Amino acid sequence: MTAEVVSVGTELLLGQTVDTHAATMARILADCGISCMRRTTVGDNLERIVEVLKGALGRADLVVTIGGLGPTSDDLTREGIAAALHDELEHVAAYEERLRKMTAFRKLPWIESLAKQADRPTCGRFVANPNGSAPGLICEKNGKTVIALPGPKNEFNPMADGPVREYLEQLQGSQVIHSRILRVCGMGESQVEEKIRPLLDGENPTVAPYAHPGEVHLRVTARAKSREEANRLIDPIHEQIQAVLGDALFGTDSTTLEQSVVDLLRDTGSTVAIAESMTGGSLGERLTNVPGASDAFAGGVIAYLPSAKIGLLGVAPELLAEYGPVSREVAEAMACLVRAELDTTYGVSITGNAGPTADVDRKPVGLVYIGVAGPAGCEVSESQFRGQRDEIRRRTTQAALVALRHTLLCASRG
Amino acid sequence: MTAEVVSVGTELLLGQTVDTHAATMARILADCGISCMRRTTVGDNLERIVEVLKGALGRADLVVTIGGLGPTSDDLTREGIAAALHDELEHVAAYEERLRKMTAFRKLPWIESLAKQADRPTCGRFVANPNGSAPGLICEKNGKTVIALPGPKNEFNPMADGPVREYLEQLQGSQVIHSRILRVCGMGESQVEEKIRPLLDGENPTVAPYAHPGEVHLRVTARAKSREEANRLIDPIHEQIQAVLGDALFGTDSTTLEQSVVDLLRDTGSTVAIAESMTGGSLGERLTNVPGASDAFAGGVIAYLPSAKIGLLGVAPELLAEYGPVSREVAEAMACLVRAELDTTYGVSITGNAGPTADVDRKPVGLVYIGVAGPAGCEVSESQFRGQRDEIRRRTTQAALVALRHTLLCASRG
Repeated sequence: MTAEVVSVGTELLLGQTVDTHAATMARILADCGISCMRRTTVGDNLERIVEVLKGALGRADLVVTIGGLGPTSDDLTREGIAAALHDELEHVAAYEERLRKMTAFRKLPWIESLAKQADRPTCGRFVANPNGSAPGLICEKNGKTVIALPGPKNEFNPMADGPVREYLEQLQGSQVIHSRILRVCGMGESQVEEKIRPLLDGENPTVAPYAHPGEVHLRVTARAKSREEANRLIDPIHEQIQAVLGDALFGTDSTTLEQSVVDLLRDTGSTVAIAESMTGGSLGERLTNVPGASDAFAGGVIAYLPSAKIGLLGVAPELLAEYGPVSREVAEAMACLVRAELDTTYGVSITGNAGPTADVDRKPVGLVYIGVAGPAGCEVSESQFRGQRDEIRRRTTQAALVALRHTLLCASRG
Repeated sequence: MTAEVVSVGTELLLGQTVDTHAATMARILADCGISCMRRTTVGDNLERIVEVLKGALGRADLVVTIGGLGPTSDDLTREGIAAALHDELEHVAAYEERLRKMTAFRKLPWIESLAKQADRPTCGRFVANPNGSAPGLICEKNGKTVIALPGPKNEFNPMADGPVREYLEQLQGSQVIHSRILRVCGMGESQVEEKIRPLLDGENPTVAPYAHPGEVHLRVTARAKSREEANRLIDPIHEQIQAVLGDALFGTDSTTLEQSVVDLLRDTGSTVAIAESMTGGSLGERLTNVPGASDAFAGGVIAYLPSAKIGLLGVAPELLAEYGPVSREVAEAMACLVRAELDTTYGVSITGNAGPTADVDRKPVGLVYIGVAGPAGCEVSESQFRGQRDEIRRRTTQAALVALRHTLLCASRG
């Protein structure tokens, strides 16, 4: 089975948006064993959309379109698909009813243009959109299939990776290409590659490393008759990598580092409170992005200015005066004080300089202290990160999670 | 003059690489006033490359290819261009000599396959590659032009933005396409479109709306002889939109909402402190992502659990018991208390339920209260958001920034 992907949007042709969805869709097609032969991007112009779709349908069994499903006048994909399939649009009154209810529920005014999102080709059915009003489409006609997905990321991603992936797996039947991502923290890409080098030459499964800020992901990919068989091929490779990398391997697939930390806290019946300075809430943001974080995370303090370190946390003004806010001593005080104040098992603190300029004490950009206070005392680590402000902040919250995870693993081994 | 961009590489079709070069090239074409009508991605297969190139040359005056110029056997773009232009490859001995010297200088072994990089269509000339061995190509035949650039980023970028941009500017003579993005908050896409509908029919400049979570971006694009002239065409449209949308228009181009809020705080000599529950630090994260946020942002409290609301902020336990943590009353108390504790001009609070399940008080997922306390008192707004946990959290911080901005604008008008 062959496929083509068609991205619709003038903003893509003008280079104002990078087409990451096309890559996501391509990966999903590859996972399902469907060969993607071509990808085309076309602007918001009905004639050209129809021309591109007809070309793609002439060559491929399946065409996936991305974008152009919204309510505005330059959203033309629905019309384009109907024309390319020699079909017509029908208005689904029941769906308009749903749209009206949804709009009322969100306390937004009803606007007539919203109604066109209830149109679909007669050969099509809707794919539910959990995060928006424009539904996706699956259209089947004369042995060809067209799938249409909306462009906004938070709408596209769950639909592509959920119902569309399931539909494609079913469509494809026999061969699957299945991957498992093994996620590694606290080690650089070349260090990981050095340790697992013999595994990099395998053919089925293959192992490929990808560097991410503060993490390395190993993609283990197997071809097999079923997902179960692919998993049986992947399991022994997973075990070998686990044996070599140990604690550095923190999770698989979509498990984030913050998820693995919250899991560890819960498993050990522990809780944590945080005191952030330079990261301004980023660590809290990551921890509370885990559903059910409230079992393990109590809260904390964003002690951005020295006055907040003193007023909210009770850091001694003399300590700040003597060592400066970016110091080992202040990191230790912050971790211990927030732990005591919220009566949690652990306290984590972050203080540092994210830039863009050296701070008042001439502490260099990227200098960071992270404190972890717990029943066994407080440890402070010093790091010097490079990069832009957001990069330094990201690496800092990553390092704080790695430090807390390390303390939790040590504690759980007694 | 019309153009198409053709990206060559199986890794792109498999989704292993995101095609950022295509967006870069599209921007350069737009800057030079050349309309990019279509973008196509094709794998490392000679037959399919030739088919795609012939199609593109049939429609457009200019085709830019990206990738497939290296020395390995799957680098086939050179052969593809020659075939599509009904031309032949000639071997340029002088360039091979240069390649051999370059290789020796870098103390690398000479490999016979490197020599093919000295091949070019007879109608072509080389574009120097400052960071690699594969030169680019500019081929002109029968009124059509094909430009070929290598795929590695450090080779592609300087070539595209240097000699290729110069060539295109010369080719095109005098026209540029220039865009300005107007960023709108606190209104949905269709609501914005309704208000500016007459402007959507303009031809030069054009106005196009794009939805983003909690924001709408209006792209105003003008064609003119120079960037200055384009800006002169855009200015009156910008003013009309400003007049219609008023405060909802918060910035242009890359100005974020948090940047506009920090700017407003600074301009009015005000400061803010925050108390976040369900967003767990996300609002602080956004505010402190603005360089120099410390002039306006003091810090705050992540009052995730009720114990933190009581312990860190001093919310009365009776208030929590009577109304529950997700309530207008608790939002008001949080905003007022954090403002008092950090002695700032404003205090912003967030409490709500981000899901995935209804909370202990049966407050529905997505119900959010945002409080803004200031010299004129405290206002609390109630919202009901939809979507996944991260989506609800994102919309909530967006709404909190919109609320704070609204209060600041009202205050500055006295």
